[in-house]
Amino acid sequence: MAVEKIPVAVLGATGSVGQRFVQLLESHPWFELTALTGSERRAGKMYRETCEWILPERLPEKAESLPILATSPEATLAPVVFSALPSAVARELEPKFAEAGAAVFSNAGAFRMEPDVPILLPEINHPHLRLIETQRRRRRWKGFIVTNSNCTSTGVSIVLSALQSEFGVKKAFLVSLQALSGAGYPGVPSLDIQDNVIPFISNEEEKLESEPLKITGEMQGDAVEPAPFTISAHCNRVAVRDGHLVCMSVELMRPADAGQAAEALKAFQAPAEVRALPSCPDPVILVRDESNRPQPQLDRMEGNGMTTVVGRIRPDPHLHLKMVVLSHNTIRGAAGGSILNAELAAAQGLISKTGA
Amino acid sequence: MAVEKIPVAVLGATGSVGQRFVQLLESHPWFELTALTGSERRAGKMYRETCEWILPERLPEKAESLPILATSPEATLAPVVFSALPSAVARELEPKFAEAGAAVFSNAGAFRMEPDVPILLPEINHPHLRLIETQRRRRRWKGFIVTNSNCTSTGVSIVLSALQSEFGVKKAFLVSLQALSGAGYPGVPSLDIQDNVIPFISNEEEKLESEPLKITGEMQGDAVEPAPFTISAHCNRVAVRDGHLVCMSVELMRPADAGQAAEALKAFQAPAEVRALPSCPDPVILVRDESNRPQPQLDRMEGNGMTTVVGRIRPDPHLHLKMVVLSHNTIRGAAGGSILNAELAAAQGLISKTGA
Amino acid sequence: MAVEKIPVAVLGATGSVGQRFVQLLESHPWFELTALTGSERRAGKMYRETCEWILPERLPEKAESLPILATSPEATLAPVVFSALPSAVARELEPKFAEAGAAVFSNAGAFRMEPDVPILLPEINHPHLRLIETQRRRRRWKGFIVTNSNCTSTGVSIVLSALQSEFGVKKAFLVSLQALSGAGYPGVPSLDIQDNVIPFISNEEEKLESEPLKITGEMQGDAVEPAPFTISAHCNRVAVRDGHLVCMSVELMRPADAGQAAEALKAFQAPAEVRALPSCPDPVILVRDESNRPQPQLDRMEGNGMTTVVGRIRPDPHLHLKMVVLSHNTIRGAAGGSILNAELAAAQGLISKTGA
Amino acid sequence: MAVEKIPVAVLGATGSVGQRFVQLLESHPWFELTALTGSERRAGKMYRETCEWILPERLPEKAESLPILATSPEATLAPVVFSALPSAVARELEPKFAEAGAAVFSNAGAFRMEPDVPILLPEINHPHLRLIETQRRRRRWKGFIVTNSNCTSTGVSIVLSALQSEFGVKKAFLVSLQALSGAGYPGVPSLDIQDNVIPFISNEEEKLESEPLKITGEMQGDAVEPAPFTISAHCNRVAVRDGHLVCMSVELMRPADAGQAAEALKAFQAPAEVRALPSCPDPVILVRDESNRPQPQLDRMEGNGMTTVVGRIRPDPHLHLKMVVLSHNTIRGAAGGSILNAELAAAQGLISKTGA
Repeated sequence: MAVEKIPVAVLGATGSVGQRFVQLLESHPWFELTALTGSERRAGKMYRETCEWILPERLPEKAESLPILATSPEATLAPVVFSALPSAVARELEPKFAEAGAAVFSNAGAFRMEPDVPILLPEINHPHLRLIETQRRRRRWKGFIVTNSNCTSTGVSIVLSALQSEFGVKKAFLVSLQALSGAGYPGVPSLDIQDNVIPFISNEEEKLESEPLKITGEMQGDAVEPAPFTISAHCNRVAVRDGHLVCMSVELMRPADAGQAAEALKAFQAPAEVRALPSCPDPVILVRDESNRPQPQLDRMEGNGMTTVVGRIRPDPHLHLKMVVLSHNTIRGAAGGSILNAELAAAQGLISKTGA
Repeated sequence: MAVEKIPVAVLGATGSVGQRFVQLLESHPWFELTALTGSERRAGKMYRETCEWILPERLPEKAESLPILATSPEATLAPVVFSALPSAVARELEPKFAEAGAAVFSNAGAFRMEPDVPILLPEINHPHLRLIETQRRRRRWKGFIVTNSNCTSTGVSIVLSALQSEFGVKKAFLVSLQALSGAGYPGVPSLDIQDNVIPFISNEEEKLESEPLKITGEMQGDAVEPAPFTISAHCNRVAVRDGHLVCMSVELMRPADAGQAAEALKAFQAPAEVRALPSCPDPVILVRDESNRPQPQLDRMEGNGMTTVVGRIRPDPHLHLKMVVLSHNTIRGAAGGSILNAELAAAQGLISKTGA
Repeated sequence: MAVEKIPVAVLGATGSVGQRFVQLLESHPWFELTALTGSERRAGKMYRETCEWILPERLPEKAESLPILATSPEATLAPVVFSALPSAVARELEPKFAEAGAAVFSNAGAFRMEPDVPILLPEINHPHLRLIETQRRRRRWKGFIVTNSNCTSTGVSIVLSALQSEFGVKKAFLVSLQALSGAGYPGVPSLDIQDNVIPFISNEEEKLESEPLKITGEMQGDAVEPAPFTISAHCNRVAVRDGHLVCMSVELMRPADAGQAAEALKAFQAPAEVRALPSCPDPVILVRDESNRPQPQLDRMEGNGMTTVVGRIRPDPHLHLKMVVLSHNTIRGAAGGSILNAELAAAQGLISKTGA
Repeated sequence: MAVEKIPVAVLGATGSVGQRFVQLLESHPWFELTALTGSERRAGKMYRETCEWILPERLPEKAESLPILATSPEATLAPVVFSALPSAVARELEPKFAEAGAAVFSNAGAFRMEPDVPILLPEINHPHLRLIETQRRRRRWKGFIVTNSNCTSTGVSIVLSALQSEFGVKKAFLVSLQALSGAGYPGVPSLDIQDNVIPFISNEEEKLESEPLKITGEMQGDAVEPAPFTISAHCNRVAVRDGHLVCMSVELMRPADAGQAAEALKAFQAPAEVRALPSCPDPVILVRDESNRPQPQLDRMEGNGMTTVVGRIRPDPHLHLKMVVLSHNTIRGAAGGSILNAELAAAQGLISKTGA
């Protein structure tokens, strides 16, 4: 890695995930935050004036006085572009950046299920990055788009991938208890969630039943062959700030008991080239042995919010195993995941400083 | 029913469920609250002095100045005894009341799984009340013990029973999001649950995997034959005051689509003799059609807290149907359920005013 | 009161206070809810379709299928109009209804401080209703506007008025802990208030330092002479659904100890003609003696949410007395207060069924 | 400071404040945590086995396997002893440690108001440390006891001291909104505080009306002359994990406007010898200019939880100024404050490694 840092932009920088990008990029060893974009009504204002900062971590000084630019490659070009845009906006604007030569690392759902766009989780599917060759060829883009998974799919996919490589996975049953920050800002009204649970999140169950299959699939030629198991999902919103918790029951191809599964998850490692990336968590998966963990409050910041925490591995009367999976939804499941993706692309020489 | 009311006592009257008994009995048409018991350190004090009343409903005036008595049949005899005792205490003391002739309606888990003790939910299994004949014969008790189910099993059992009679049930997968009042008082420390979820409740999954089988079973001779399906359960505590919500996936014997299941649940009725009881909810099951209901805050008081509310009935990729079930844990799932049980026993002539 | 009920409309019926009006009017003995208005995008839809109902009480059946009308006297005329409009909208539209002959009972702040508009709290200042004579004369309106106070001023004004008539008041120091429902719906984002306090509510301190002076003032000729004391206020938002709590220190003209103040507050009564109104609380003020009351959770529904609850009356090192005041902000402090105002006007013959 | 670290013990290490001591001492440059004490039933167990760790920060590895010792100088002697004991226990046991030669830095209230025991806040009253000379002489102790202030008094005293030295203070009116962690663990039951405020904390108002006077007083000979102003306090518990917020109105000797007060608070500095201590916050006081700050969620960790954050400085109709003060109650207001006190004592040569 050169001493000179790569300039990066954040699209949609004032929302919940946008803020997380700004916070995590504060002192990144490879990337230098140089541009922020926002909606028209904010354009021209300084970031600290127009952004209702909601993170307990302080707004980084370097970002405070950056001006809000328009979300267009003309106004805001950088070799690396992190997108925290809403999905409908992303669908329209991200291709323009990719066409103009930017390496776009997107948190939006817009392109995730396109066959030539990877949902990249480097710890488990770094070969999927090869999809961008097809993508550039087909779309005649100088740059490319790489997505990270939906925040609820993230931890689940990492655990399922680790189980799959050891035992094979046949079926998974998932019930999520999802944090407020996953709904953005202003997001969930306090009157809706105080002393309450909302057993519905729009389109979330559909994503959770499909994304992990693509994520844990294998490259076959120049396409991803989805993993052959199936998922049933229920999604709930709970009054937790950060950290999506998922109750998971799983049926394996080769039965394993709780101890064997725990061993496999503890032993799981990212490939060497991924472990070398600055944001790669160590461990990727932390297995806790207490009867009542993981808990969002106590475990979400494990590995600076990049580690997936698993606990309560135990037999299931129908399938083979029950367990609980926790992942920080705006760090590993959003901004931190995109940054890790960009690190992998940079390490593999896919990013040039004058445009990808 | 005679004009003169039946005197009733509440054992363990100062806790979370004990208070609910006192509140619900305030103006009961058949029962008159005449005695309250509590731990030794409270004995002799007036109820309002020693009880940290935590319900938003006001402490009933008639109960305010009742003295706390010792929990023994010598100190506190009434023809009907409602028990809100902790399970270990219940195991020791409830039999003494039954032996002395009281009809004991217990909220404790101590005797639930004994073969001659019914877990009674009159809307769905009122024939189980016949178990008390065997019970009295075997144990040589003048009185008897009838239990209600664990608060999480209650709503689930009612819904499973309605599905079973129409379609047959093969498997159920349950993930609970349980309210704070289910843990009693003082119960869950605020530092443990604020901005958090606890994915564990001691012994709860075991109960939820076994009780509904007995509850929805059939009388065979003088015993209950458990229902032939199986349950897998995950239990979680969430920051909700009242109302246990359960995400349920269910496999049926005869497949049904969401519309057919909704119809069956809407059509479900308690038997006529149960519908005539003062606390029997109408409807027993309320099916809501919105995409985001039931919610504890909005739906737990349906039918004065005695109705089970079901929503989001939809296909499940593995089993047949997904749905969400809500039941008020200290009303239908505890004190209100016990009172309904006592009403059934009274209506069937099983309670004499001079001792059962 | 005639057997035939008076038709009433609710302006701005879909918001937090609008819903409270609809709920409280469900079975009102004098008023019949016949019309609901809302913003343009909702016009023509049925109430239950367009309104995100957020109250734990069920949406009244009669209101469910009322259509949303435009907020204009042409579209929606009724002899009595309850306004839950935002202040800026109220300033423009309420006069049109008053001009057209409606008796407007407004929850908005727009006209409160106009000299010819009463801020009416019948229990303490029913003579202020006389202001409407001047108002009609000056403005040449067939109808009139009567406002109720800001939700935080309500309980405080009732208590200050009771103290003033007995001892005289010189100064009051107020710090509010205000509920979420006071900010409307969607109102406060959950990410802003979970595990947090916001020590600021826009314009609230200004209102709390001025409104109580007008409310507790005396009619002098055809104007209200504000009370001669002064108020200092700090306002905070806390994570409570309903019920504004105010810590109050007060300096009196004639010193009184805690016991004397408690006596005066307990003895306080509304005038006979007000006590006869259906929504008048009994008692107007409830004094609790426990060391840790009032609390929003336990005391806000006292008197169906219309009673002001006071506790912890004790000496203050600087002024004379400290105490804590609790009032339900969307019932006594908003919709319930407006309804009580309309009852007073109706009882005094100020409302004709064909327009005021 | 020598390269070799000073061994320190934490008394009452398993509670809320005890855990904070353990966490903050993890990598302290001068102190080495070598001993932990707890109640009899925990004695002999390893810390991680017996302690229900409730902090989001991870339990430090070095502390995990320390055994719980008895709280007596025979079992647990170290030159520096941090006490997180409950007040009644502290009154009995802390003197034994002081007598045996330990420098006791206590978070308990037991000895705070004794004339020869300092309530030390080095940033504002480091000369008070001289009280320990009298203390040792009078009590014939080899060691000594230094207390830190009640967690609510801390931030308030720092701000009042800064105002006093610039303008003089005549009167302060304080209303606190206090965090859950201030009540220890298990502390406040969730059923008591969810959707609620408790307007009472036992003995807290008494402390808040007296401690700041001693803290901000001046050394006169060998005693502290309390500051000549007076305080009126209301104390409330709110559903916030950490961070006590206080609404303060203050009357000055020499009137100042909001701008002048802000300037004085911004300019406030600890004395040079205190600024050199590892835990001294920089700045001591942070003044925020936004209309809605400080907020516990966003500002409590300022200066690693050691900075006092002030905002909303504005005129008060009765006194001179209103403002809002926030201080982290278990860091600056408890464990962090005690550690800063120990650093001052160490820097002044008052601690010998073989016992004070």
